[in-house]
Amino acid sequence: VRDRSVAQNAQLALLLEVSGTPKPGNVDRERDFADLRFEHFMAGAVGARPGLELAAAGEPVGEAFERAVDGMADQSAGNTQFGALLVLSPLVAAASEGALTPARADAVVRNTTVADSAGFYRAFEHVDVAVDDPPDGLEPLDVRYGADAIPELESRGLTLLDVMERSADVDGVAAEWVGQFERVFDAAEAILDDDGPVPDRASRAFLDLLAEGPDTFVVTRNGPEAAAEVQRRAQAVLAGEEDATELAEELVARDINPGTTADLVAGALFVALERGLVV
Amino acid sequence: VRDRSVAQNAQLALLLEVSGTPKPGNVDRERDFADLRFEHFMAGAVGARPGLELAAAGEPVGEAFERAVDGMADQSAGNTQFGALLVLSPLVAAASEGALTPARADAVVRNTTVADSAGFYRAFEHVDVAVDDPPDGLEPLDVRYGADAIPELESRGLTLLDVMERSADVDGVAAEWVGQFERVFDAAEAILDDDGPVPDRASRAFLDLLAEGPDTFVVTRNGPEAAAEVQRRAQAVLAGEEDATELAEELVARDINPGTTADLVAGALFVALERGLVV
Repeated sequence: VRDRSVAQNAQLALLLEVSGTPKPGNVDRERDFADLRFEHFMAGAVGARPGLELAAAGEPVGEAFERAVDGMADQSAGNTQFGALLVLSPLVAAASEGALTPARADAVVRNTTVADSAGFYRAFEHVDVAVDDPPDGLEPLDVRYGADAIPELESRGLTLLDVMERSADVDGVAAEWVGQFERVFDAAEAILDDDGPVPDRASRAFLDLLAEGPDTFVVTRNGPEAAAEVQRRAQAVLAGEEDATELAEELVARDINPGTTADLVAGALFVALERGLVV
Repeated sequence: VRDRSVAQNAQLALLLEVSGTPKPGNVDRERDFADLRFEHFMAGAVGARPGLELAAAGEPVGEAFERAVDGMADQSAGNTQFGALLVLSPLVAAASEGALTPARADAVVRNTTVADSAGFYRAFEHVDVAVDDPPDGLEPLDVRYGADAIPELESRGLTLLDVMERSADVDGVAAEWVGQFERVFDAAEAILDDDGPVPDRASRAFLDLLAEGPDTFVVTRNGPEAAAEVQRRAQAVLAGEEDATELAEELVARDINPGTTADLVAGALFVALERGLVV
């Protein structure tokens, strides 16, 4: 038997992430939103793979990410795994250089360039992503400008890590980029220490992360109070005071989707696979 | 957005097949066997892709199939998609040459050689597949010999189509090889004519095929009476006399797995994707 490649592990992480259930508020093996369904995540993972292979081949992270997003978007539901690919791209690049460690991942993001930022901005032209208005002074860098913001990136000399630093307080994925992917690596170790079927471990890792801090995608789409409620109720699930499946049904019905937490789980599953998780 | 390649459509077909529910007796989005679970099919589809790409690149079908099986087997449950890959390999080769038609698929299988047979036999060394004893006179060609049977294949000059002809009456996948993939193409058209989410269409196509004839994998593992019962009860589901989900629960509990019918659905989903099915 041939072992999976780094890019194959990343694709499998995307598939395992959406297979975990319950993941309250997310598309999972048992739940869909009306226009964002399980099959769209399957197609997204299939389409993302060539971009993940570019990252594994040592191509620039921004270019690999843009290519992954472009392929991911080849399904009818729009954004399925934008954030997950933003977590995975540097981790895949790091894993292709040797054992996957926080230090190696940190080196990858520190080596990003203005060209990587340009790739990141171009990726927004392939798919609609829910984002907030930029903070004061950063209006010219609104990601919704896509490639039109590239001259501004160049004049300010912003690397992709610089861009992530500017949104780390409002985006849980950007926070991982600037924080050595600490929550991702911690969740990966929890998945490795857990037992039972891998999708069940993914579900438990998701709940742990959800209870740990507010999901920034919920903050963006539903507001900070909804995000605080989701965190509090995930804590109640962990305390045995609420049922995870009932919470999953309720959040889907209310269109509250903790997508950033799912992105971190995808990253954690990839790290765990690279560290020997058996499927 | 970049369109999916032929190999990507084949990989997506594998993923959509297992996502359809209910598919009575099969692993599906809602059901697992104890040691053969949804995540193993995810990993199987990830691992199979390089072999599918060989088929799309025009490499010999037997070699591509063997490579696909080798990668598919890189998960802990053993055989997940051996039969599906045997359906897909010639269809992928045909699709890479132009519009996917029965005539083009037939030309691919007619062009197979003794080397393709050798690849097919080698594939049995990568994974345990449930098979019957060979008929009288064909003992030296028992697939369980794996590569040890290759000298016999060579001395008899058997192409892979010749091998399939010898088992077409006991193996529904082999029957497709010798019959211009008629049931696969018919099911693809039914999927295209259907509406609603693609996994739901896959479930309906599965039930139609199951009602149409005995599943040869059930014949092999559970005997002809069990296969006849499964066919009859699928007919009862179509007649509104039985509930598909209850039948699914019962067949999984009885370890009756109509895997050949699932293989045909994977092929049908691939043909449908090549013909414009939107996910």
